[in-house]
Parts: sequence; structure tokens; C-alpha cells
Amino acid sequence: MAANHPPNNEHIDDNMIKVEVNLDDISGEWLGFVMDRLFEAGANDVFYTPIYMKKNRPGILLQLLCSNQALSEMKDILLQETTTLGIRYYPITVHRMERRFIKVDTEWGPVTVKQGISKGKVFQSSPEYEDCKNIADKHHIPLKQVYEMVWKQL
Amino acid sequence: MAANHPPNNEHIDDNMIKVEVNLDDISGEWLGFVMDRLFEAGANDVFYTPIYMKKNRPGILLQLLCSNQALSEMKDILLQETTTLGIRYYPITVHRMERRFIKVDTEWGPVTVKQGISKGKVFQSSPEYEDCKNIADKHHIPLKQVYEMVWKQL
Amino acid sequence: MAANHPPNNEHIDDNMIKVEVNLDDISGEWLGFVMDRLFEAGANDVFYTPIYMKKNRPGILLQLLCSNQALSEMKDILLQETTTLGIRYYPITVHRMERRFIKVDTEWGPVTVKQGISKGKVFQSSPEYEDCKNIADKHHIPLKQVYEMVWKQL
Amino acid sequence: MAANHPPNNEHIDDNMIKVEVNLDDISGEWLGFVMDRLFEAGANDVFYTPIYMKKNRPGILLQLLCSNQALSEMKDILLQETTTLGIRYYPITVHRMERRFIKVDTEWGPVTVKQGISKGKVFQSSPEYEDCKNIADKHHIPLKQVYEMVWKQL
Amino acid sequence: MAANHPPNNEHIDDNMIKVEVNLDDISGEWLGFVMDRLFEAGANDVFYTPIYMKKNRPGILLQLLCSNQALSEMKDILLQETTTLGIRYYPITVHRMERRFIKVDTEWGPVTVKQGISKGKVFQSSPEYEDCKNIADKHHIPLKQVYEMVWKQL
Amino acid sequence: MAANHPPNNEHIDDNMIKVEVNLDDISGEWLGFVMDRLFEAGANDVFYTPIYMKKNRPGILLQLLCSNQALSEMKDILLQETTTLGIRYYPITVHRMERRFIKVDTEWGPVTVKQGISKGKVFQSSPEYEDCKNIADKHHIPLKQVYEMVWKQL
Repeated sequence: MAANHPPNNEHIDDNMIKVEVNLDDISGEWLGFVMDRLFEAGANDVFYTPIYMKKNRPGILLQLLCSNQALSEMKDILLQETTTLGIRYYPITVHRMERRFIKVDTEWGPVTVKQGISKGKVFQSSPEYEDCKNIADKHHIPLKQVYEMVWKQL
Repeated sequence: MAANHPPNNEHIDDNMIKVEVNLDDISGEWLGFVMDRLFEAGANDVFYTPIYMKKNRPGILLQLLCSNQALSEMKDILLQETTTLGIRYYPITVHRMERRFIKVDTEWGPVTVKQGISKGKVFQSSPEYEDCKNIADKHHIPLKQVYEMVWKQL
Repeated sequence: MAANHPPNNEHIDDNMIKVEVNLDDISGEWLGFVMDRLFEAGANDVFYTPIYMKKNRPGILLQLLCSNQALSEMKDILLQETTTLGIRYYPITVHRMERRFIKVDTEWGPVTVKQGISKGKVFQSSPEYEDCKNIADKHHIPLKQVYEMVWKQL
Repeated sequence: MAANHPPNNEHIDDNMIKVEVNLDDISGEWLGFVMDRLFEAGANDVFYTPIYMKKNRPGILLQLLCSNQALSEMKDILLQETTTLGIRYYPITVHRMERRFIKVDTEWGPVTVKQGISKGKVFQSSPEYEDCKNIADKHHIPLKQVYEMVWKQL
Repeated sequence: MAANHPPNNEHIDDNMIKVEVNLDDISGEWLGFVMDRLFEAGANDVFYTPIYMKKNRPGILLQLLCSNQALSEMKDILLQETTTLGIRYYPITVHRMERRFIKVDTEWGPVTVKQGISKGKVFQSSPEYEDCKNIADKHHIPLKQVYEMVWKQL
Repeated sequence: MAANHPPNNEHIDDNMIKVEVNLDDISGEWLGFVMDRLFEAGANDVFYTPIYMKKNRPGILLQLLCSNQALSEMKDILLQETTTLGIRYYPITVHRMERRFIKVDTEWGPVTVKQGISKGKVFQSSPEYEDCKNIADKHHIPLKQVYEMVWKQL
């Protein structure tokens, strides 16, 4: 499951696979479920794109990223949970920034901020969604207000 | 079925309805079929938009235009052929241009061109797709070439 | 909150409103949150469409359905949780089918099936997603398999 | 052209029209141009949605908002600049927040911030894009950095 | 044309190519035609995605899958039938399940069901669309009803 | 910057890279800006696709094409101007047609037409957008009319 938890230092990963499936005979209900299943099983990312398929069919292109080691399990889930008869894939390189986690204090408690760092320089500072959401839910304040407060503290 | 074949003169039609249905538990295969059925039954237009629905579901917004008189039949088809439990709609006004059909000669035979006219002035001149397609199929030439030839003759 | 829980008999509701907001300065993270908030507050439906806005901006069209009585609360949430400066809306009619809930037995326990009925005739029979999902999660079987079993029992 | 420049106080405008056109025989090049033309002529908003049309055609739904007084000019532009033979529309209500413009100082000069206010309370504070873009271009700094600086000053 | 008719046993095909073209100066009418042409010429799949291109242009990303041997013919069609000046591509691996075709009897006659099989286990059982459509058309029954009957017989 | 200005003769370029980034925490405003920045820095193409990401988030898939030499600069811009923590990429081959530029005279002055040529045969003849736009703006005529005039002259 290494690929699911890549190291936090900046690195280039040459061991990744992009998997794609075209789907025109599955409902949106099932697709919502499939995404969760794939993430739980170690997919690094999963996302859908609306596509136009033959015979006037609105379809979905499922794309996922996983490590070479996880490919076999991803295929199993796609077979079990979708309607596909074919799975295609190709190697892909991923350059991941260094990730560092800092704490920022707000009047409602601390919020984790994920920093993206390259060559020692901080490029991104993203408040963690789940932290902000929990505060918004608990204190009945808008999520927007929580983010704005964190940004000011940075 | 008057609305299905609106008159060819320029006019404003205040008798039209836009019908909408959100679908998250139907496959693309069925949706391709539904569109044809609705057109055959007299819909003036039918089209799909990809939408994001709750629980991470990619869904489809089906929209159709029909006359007030056709609404009841459209509802019947939506019930029979889709998975919806609710159908929503609102009145809509349509300003239709005058439509005139002229013939343009090409080396492969005549092509109908549909003209759109407002207050006596020609704004649109569209080669009829089916005519061009038939020529392309029969003479094994690119569709693009047929259109370009018609445009030059206009 | 009547509109949030419309009656289960077949009826036509003339008291509904469609609300629309265009958004080009909000992130996807916040939009996932806003949808949940609007449903919790009584929206009958909420969905997003990708749109092309000025200055080459990919944006989102937020659409929601609510009763006239709920409009004011929906506006408040949109102001608090999104970045919009304007909210537009128009009345819309909804024809809702009769809803009836039956139980279907499977080897893993009962599943609720929602039926859609018009003029006394059953048009839709949809296994309830949450029931199927719970069985799939608990018994470690594909969701697809649960649905297929329910369909066979119907 | 009042509708193009609605008043800055909070108000509900019952004089607006939503116009829609389906397009399957026009190129993306022209559509980029049409949007600019419609804004210049006083449209309050213009946006595109990808749609699935008959005969397997990817099409575009053009939507625009304008005042009743501007409708006639919008129709003229749609006729001249697109390929449509029909234009549909319906009335729509717009609730606009109060807009107030304040100046925020940054190390690169002042930036206008547009505030959205309802019942006297500030809900939105959006740095003006053009101001931030000009600073980013002139000082060769990321746009992101300019926004972040403005947010901190608020 | 082997790739167009891959063998029915489960296998991994390392001989496939994904071809991509961005299009911003072509109409939806032509794109509907192009898809058919590419399938006729042996493309294994063809699909469209709506994309946002420069200068505010809604465009289309055409993607197709074909064997290495078919690449040259695909390029010819793209040149002849679209407006592109460049065609890009990369190798892609396809894992295809075993396909087996069984017959299911219904009150309106037999329907072919395509089964997807991996390592000897049946994962998919899809009623053939054309069979179901023919029955729905001939007997004037909803397509949904035909599928539901086949599912019950499985 | 050779890749940014590939040669005008027909050739196959094996030195290209497709770069992809998934974005769910950035606004449309910034994305409009990023596209321009990437083009200015030598990207051969940049385009966005709407995607469905986890937690019900509408996101954007940014794709860009560049030469191997430009990859490093593209990464820098993506880090500076977007919110991403990871950048993925894979090699891609591009077959570019010969490009030739001819002048076509119209009553409003000359228009450049870009021709796409393969094996010495002209497949595409596209009026240059900027030329046509300038004429439309200067002479207050529809863009459509300018294109139609150029097509007739070809």
C-alpha cells in the first residue's frame, strides 16, 4: 500500500499507472459507490468525466491513478462493481511536492494546514477540509468563514 | 401535433413548455433510446446535460421542449422509459425565424439549404445535413467537402 | 418544511421555485459542502452543471428546487456559503408520482423498494440505495450483486 | 441600458429575461466571439453548457440574462452571429445584493474589493480580478500571491 | 482488422493506441458524422469530451482507441473529416475479459446476453441493446420493460 | 522554445509531454489566468475538462502539451499559480501536418488562411480568427459574414 501513502518528501514517482474505463450501461447511483470503493482499496485518485459515446449515449469516463502493485486489485473492483468488459491503462510519472502539516489556531480551535513545498520553498498552504468542516458543523458557522479565518492567521 | 410542425413564417409561440427531469439511476444505453422516442412522439427538441448530483453521482439533466398539447404524451413516455418519479416544467416563449428551403446544385446532385429569415432578411443558410450525408456516403467523399462545395455555390 | 416532504400520493405541485446561481470564484471543496447544507435545510433537489463563463473561466451553475416557503432560507445559505452577489429564480410546476414502499427479501435481509405509480399503475421499482449499500458493506459483496438479487425477486 | 448597470443597493429585479439557444452547427471559435459581443451589447450574463443533441452531436446551450428592454437587441445579435433559427426565453427574478467597493492597500498598490451586502451585513469580499491581474502582470508575481495578500489585509 | 475484432478469450493487448485531437473550429453536426466514420473504419472505441480551450472557446476532445495497424487509416479519416492540423497519440494496454454470448428467452422472443468473464467467473451479463431495442420497437413496449424481463430470466 | 514553434513542414514529433493536474480547490477566476500564463510560457496547448471528484466536488482536469525542454518551466508555473501538490505526465507523439499560409482578398481587405497539408495534399483551409475578428470589429459586421466571404473566395 506504499503508493497509497507516498512519502512526504518531494520526489518523482515512476511507478504509477493511469487506468481508464468507458461506461455507458451503469447508473450514477452505482458510480458514486464505486468511487468510494476504489479509494478505500488504495487508489491515489479517482475521477469521472462526462463523455459522448456512440448511439447518442451520455457516458462516463472513469479514470484512476494507482501504483503498479495496486493495479490488480483495482481491476478486480472494476470488474465486480462496474459493467465493463475491458480495462485500459498506461504508465504515468508523478512529481509530488514535499508535504508538511502545520497547525493554525483559530477562535474555534486548531486547524491543520497542508503545505506544498518544492526545493524548500512553500508554494501551497491549504487548510484541511475536514478540520474546517468539523468546526463549521459544530459551531454553526459558514465554512467560508472558517477558511477566511485560517487564511488570515497564516 | 401542430407544435411539432410549427408554421414556416416568422412568429412568436407562447404555447411552449420546457420539461426537465434529473436522472441518476439510468444508463446511457437507455438514454440514447429515450431521446429517439421523445422526438418520434413530437418533442420539438430534446437534449441532455451532465450534472453533479448528491452522493457523488454523475447524473443527467434531460430537457425537452414541447407544445402544451404534447405535454401529457411526453410525461407518459418519461414515466415508461426512464426511472423518474417526478417531472417538472415551466412555460417558455419561442421566437422562430421564417424558414425557407432552396436547392443548390453540386456536381453530385442538388442539396437543400434551409434559410433562416427575419423581417425579410436572410440570416442563416444551412445545408441540410441528411442531404450532405447521403452524398458523402454514396460518393465516398468527406462530408466536409460536400459542405464546402455547397457554401461556395450559395 | 412541507415541500421537503411532499405527500406520497400522485399530485401536481404549483408552489415550487427553481433557484440558479453562477459561480466562478469558488472552489470545488466548498461546493461539495454547500450541496449538503442546502439538502439539510430542506432543498428538494440540488445539482451542479459545468459552464463556460467570461474571461475563459470554467464555472459552475448551481441549481436547486425548493418550495416558495423555503426560498428565503435557501437565499440565506447561498449568501453565507457561496461567493455570489445575485440569486435568480422562477416558478416551476412539479408532477410527482405516487410513491409506495415495499419490502423485498434477499438472502442478506430485506431491502426497501420505492415504487413510482401513476393512475394506479406501477412504473418504477427502485431498490433503495442506502439499504443495498449497507448490505454490500456488511457482507463484503459487490453493490451490483445486491441490486441484481433484488431485481430478480421483484 | 439600465439593466446592464443595475443599482448598487440591494433589490429584487422582476424585469429580467433568461434567453436560451441550442447550437449544434457552430464552431467554438465563433462562440468565443459571440460571448464578447453579447456582453458588449449589455447582457448581464452569458454562459455556455455542453449538451448532448440528436444524431450523436455534441452541442452548446447558450444562456444569457438581460433586461426586458435589451431582449430585442440580444435577439438581433444571436441571429447575426450564430446559426440559430429559434430563440426561446422566459421571465426570471433576480435578487441582487448591495454592492460596495472598498480599497485595500498592498505593497504593490491599492486593490479594489467588491463587497456583497444583504440587510446591512457584509457576506462577500472579493478582490477585483482585473486589479489583481494587473499587479501580477506588472510585478511578475503569481496571481495567487496577490489574492492572498489582499485577503490578509481585509 | 484484428484489433477491431479482438478474440473473445480473456487477454491483455499491448498493441493498442489512444489517439487524441482537440477541436475548436468544427460543428456538432460534423462530429456526429465523424464518430460513425471512425467506427466503420475499425476504431475500437470513439468518444468526445467537452473541453475549455483558449479565447473562451468551448471545444471537443476527440479520443479514439485503435490497433497499431489501424493508426494510419484513423489519421486519414481525421484529416479528411475534421479540421485538425495535428494528431497526437500514445500506446495503451487493454485487458479484455472473456466474452461469451448466451440466449435468454422472453415472451417476445430470444435476447442475446453478453457475458464478461475473468478467470472463469462471470462478472457481467448485459442484454444486447439492439435485441432489446428491436423488441421494444416491434411490440410497442418500453425498452425498460424488456431489460427487466431479461434480468429476471437470468 | 523550438517546441512552441514547431517547424511548418509535415513531421512526427516524439519529444512531447502531456501534463495533467486535478484541481478541486481553485476558482474559475484563477484558472482563466493560468491558461494565459501557460500559453505565454510556451505551452503548445492547454485545456480544461470538468471532472467529478471525491466528496461531491466539481473539479477541473488541467491538461497541457509541451516539449520535454519546457516541462520544467510548466511545472514551475503550475506550482506558483495553482493549488496543486502533484503534477503527472507521460510522453506523447504528435503528427503535425504541413502548415502553409495564403492570403485571400475580401472587400474589407486581405485575410490569412492557414492550410493544413499532408503528403502534398491540402486538407484544411482555415481563415485566421484574429484577421476575421479584426475586420468584424472594424467594419461592424458579423464575424459569420467575414468567414462566409473568405470561404467563397477560396
